[in-house]
Amino acid sequence: MRKIVECVPNFSVGRDPDTIDAIAGAIKGVDGCRLLDVDPGYSTNRTVYTFVGDPESVIEGALAGARVARKMIDMRGHKGEHPRFGAMDVCPFIPVVGVTMDECVEISRRFAQKAADELAVPFYLYEQAAPAVYRCKLSDIRQGEYEGLAGKLEDPRWKPDFGPDTFVPEWGATATGARMFLIAYNVNLLATSNQAHRIALNLRETGRGEGSPGKLQNVQGMGWFVDEYDMAQVTVNLTDYKITPLHVVYEEVKKEAELLGLPVAGSEIVGLVPLESLLSAADYYIEKEGLFIYRENQKLRLAIERLGLNSIVPFRPEERIIEYITAEKPEEPLASMTTRAFIEEVASRSSAPGGGSVSAVCAAMGVGLGAMVAKLTYGVRKFENVQGHIQKVLPTLDSVTQQLIAMIDADTSAFNEFMDGLRMPQNTKEERRLRKEKMQNGLKTAIDVPLTTMRLGDLAWGPFEVIARYGNPASRSDTQVGAASLKSGIWGAYQNVLINMVDIEDGEYRQKTLEEAEKINQRAADKCDKVLSLLENRG
Amino acid sequence: MRKIVECVPNFSVGRDPDTIDAIAGAIKGVDGCRLLDVDPGYSTNRTVYTFVGDPESVIEGALAGARVARKMIDMRGHKGEHPRFGAMDVCPFIPVVGVTMDECVEISRRFAQKAADELAVPFYLYEQAAPAVYRCKLSDIRQGEYEGLAGKLEDPRWKPDFGPDTFVPEWGATATGARMFLIAYNVNLLATSNQAHRIALNLRETGRGEGSPGKLQNVQGMGWFVDEYDMAQVTVNLTDYKITPLHVVYEEVKKEAELLGLPVAGSEIVGLVPLESLLSAADYYIEKEGLFIYRENQKLRLAIERLGLNSIVPFRPEERIIEYITAEKPEEPLASMTTRAFIEEVASRSSAPGGGSVSAVCAAMGVGLGAMVAKLTYGVRKFENVQGHIQKVLPTLDSVTQQLIAMIDADTSAFNEFMDGLRMPQNTKEERRLRKEKMQNGLKTAIDVPLTTMRLGDLAWGPFEVIARYGNPASRSDTQVGAASLKSGIWGAYQNVLINMVDIEDGEYRQKTLEEAEKINQRAADKCDKVLSLLENRG
Repeated sequence: MRKIVECVPNFSVGRDPDTIDAIAGAIKGVDGCRLLDVDPGYSTNRTVYTFVGDPESVIEGALAGARVARKMIDMRGHKGEHPRFGAMDVCPFIPVVGVTMDECVEISRRFAQKAADELAVPFYLYEQAAPAVYRCKLSDIRQGEYEGLAGKLEDPRWKPDFGPDTFVPEWGATATGARMFLIAYNVNLLATSNQAHRIALNLRETGRGEGSPGKLQNVQGMGWFVDEYDMAQVTVNLTDYKITPLHVVYEEVKKEAELLGLPVAGSEIVGLVPLESLLSAADYYIEKEGLFIYRENQKLRLAIERLGLNSIVPFRPEERIIEYITAEKPEEPLASMTTRAFIEEVASRSSAPGGGSVSAVCAAMGVGLGAMVAKLTYGVRKFENVQGHIQKVLPTLDSVTQQLIAMIDADTSAFNEFMDGLRMPQNTKEERRLRKEKMQNGLKTAIDVPLTTMRLGDLAWGPFEVIARYGNPASRSDTQVGAASLKSGIWGAYQNVLINMVDIEDGEYRQKTLEEAEKINQRAADKCDKVLSLLENRG
Repeated sequence: MRKIVECVPNFSVGRDPDTIDAIAGAIKGVDGCRLLDVDPGYSTNRTVYTFVGDPESVIEGALAGARVARKMIDMRGHKGEHPRFGAMDVCPFIPVVGVTMDECVEISRRFAQKAADELAVPFYLYEQAAPAVYRCKLSDIRQGEYEGLAGKLEDPRWKPDFGPDTFVPEWGATATGARMFLIAYNVNLLATSNQAHRIALNLRETGRGEGSPGKLQNVQGMGWFVDEYDMAQVTVNLTDYKITPLHVVYEEVKKEAELLGLPVAGSEIVGLVPLESLLSAADYYIEKEGLFIYRENQKLRLAIERLGLNSIVPFRPEERIIEYITAEKPEEPLASMTTRAFIEEVASRSSAPGGGSVSAVCAAMGVGLGAMVAKLTYGVRKFENVQGHIQKVLPTLDSVTQQLIAMIDADTSAFNEFMDGLRMPQNTKEERRLRKEKMQNGLKTAIDVPLTTMRLGDLAWGPFEVIARYGNPASRSDTQVGAASLKSGIWGAYQNVLINMVDIEDGEYRQKTLEEAEKINQRAADKCDKVLSLLENRG
């Protein structure tokens, strides 16, 4: 499960192309970092970089940028329309895939730690990483900007979290921390700009200033008119889409618009968006309209239509959803072979692919047949009285099939780890111990593969019963073959567990594993018979 | 007001490129005809042509195609999967812009008449043009197809409406008539194909065959699954969008889908669509949601969003709405001059542009200012208690402004007609009479122009009072100038009426026109004072 973090550093340079490119080059130079966007602002004299990568490289990327800034940016005599107080003004870390907010807080600390030591400049932690409430808001930390920083540093309440508390004139200070993924979102209205603005005032967190807050929190926004589209927009930034999701904003704007008798005309997302925010939008409508949808790209399609994301330009998931952009294609040599070549490879002289892969294929095909029968039953008028049962099991059958396919290639890697052990040197006691230990782990991995195949196959029996009971009778034989094929897949995996168990030396692991494997195998035999008999007497 | 008719002839040729191109060339060769699409079918051995034009040229186009078919198509030994009984199998005429159904019936008769005489082949009238109910359906007329035509013609009940009633073997027969514009429309569903099919069965006119008709009439449809989009569709043909409009189909499918707990995911229109069908969809939602929208391209945007027409490919009105495709840009030399050049042209030695154009400009600017004040009032919170009043008058002000602009160029054409008369020969009594008559008409046209300017200006006084009463006080002077400018525009036009009246000889026309002109002019003076006083005491 890969970890992806996004980093959006702002540097106080916007008019010097050499520095702008040097920073971009430095970030691109770090392995594992992918630069998605560079946005220089002439009037603001400020440039915003957006890049992603795994936690380690993201820290390296941010450091690389900071190093260049240290050499090439001098804050004395810096002018710009946007408030700033440092050469590297702000550097947020944002969780994207497989990292929690805390990990990001941790990441921002480690970055601040390293940067402060190497570059000898002050760092403040803000937002989630802020040590105290009064140092939470960026606008507070940056109060007084660069010109007032010298004074601010003598105040003990503003001692930097990292680095020196003396004023470094050519650098200033930097605010770093972790925050949620920011979504820039516009809802279209066939109205005037100030009708749109009124709606924005009612919804945004700050509302109309003190005393009359808006209805939604973590939302900043305003209303304006876009000549090019000939429409007004409520344009907002969602600073935390988990608290106020996309669809909530959309629905609230719709309610406000109805009160004013104004029509909403779709919406648009500017920049990238996390997958989760669209899936939760889909879930909301699925739940609201009581729909039955489980496949991801159908959920996306639903979200796109309900939010009217195609209203201005077509919304293409593979270009705009950040997980899709950063996904790497998995490596599966066997599964990518043609069926013919795969079987011929099985029959060839090398012992891999062998029984293990064959078992995984049998199990996968078995469950696949189950899914097929379920799909031939779902949505057919004749069987509409059993739709409920089918809907419960179909998603399981689909996902188990997918996971079993991945198991076809699983055991080649185990095979290699074992051989590494075999080739280790063995001419001192210590070396022999390490070698033996390495070989034992190889064996456990070699056992873990077929065991996983068994566990996965095992999940499918429940659904199989349901199908045997309510499935489309025309494809009875497919259910039979499915069940039988799943059983013999599990059985085959069972044999692989047994045969690798012979050389396992720690008894406790051996006894615990055999027990579980035996039960699963037994259950496979019983369930299969049950399925067959259920089918038998449905006639 | 231009007349546009669409013609969709089907020819029984689909495998011979030369004939296919020859027919296309012939249609394109006729002035005034515009060929929009050629669709040959190999397996059906049939080609469908779609072209538009004014009534006269459309008849010529259809004739040109028929002439080629007469020479190059021989029905003996013709095979194809689609039912047919003639070289030119069917030729419908469809009202698009500014023609009624009856005119189209008339057009199809004249076409059948001409073609039958020139080509000596039989023609049947079907659909709206059918002389009797039993000859109304195409499927009945074509019963037995080409192979059974010889027999059919001996039956007196099937005497052709035009042409010989003997069998012409290399041609067969043709069905022609008038029908409504056909709209091919698909509603997307995240479902299976037969869930979509069930919905289609409940809605289409024929329903599930005899005894259980669908809910909507003039709708043929079915449900299917499209792999490319990974969605199911209810695909329908609307044979009469006036009886069952687009939005009705969309809403009905939505209701049926909800009963099945299925989500609708937008829709798509295949081919072209008439403007009216989208405007009526907009009106339906405007009325349902109580919206205030009067500009056409906003109405279109509303319809597009509500029907989700962008779901698959972006819907571009200028490429898909048939009136937009066939529109010609109007010719207005003066209005296209820069303001500077226009005023310099006024000041130049030629008498055109003269007082007439100047008056039209004054009136247009006056009403324009009215519209401006209305827009500065509408949608502003401070004035939300007078929104109703503003909403009633704004559309009027907008459209009167547009029509007055068109009047700037109006009187150059009148000036030319008068000169044509002046140059006619006058050396026989008869010729002098025609010359005098022509000059009198020129004069009436020359009077009709400023009179129209007066009538149009006159429509704006009502709205002006409303604005004077409830308009945004910050732009009081704009309302004053607007009213004054309108008054002097009307006054100017009045002078042009008077001065051209001097040479009019028929008293009755003169007396009637002067009376009306005087009233309008007087009303302008009164209304203007009233508006000014209303403004005066709003302070």
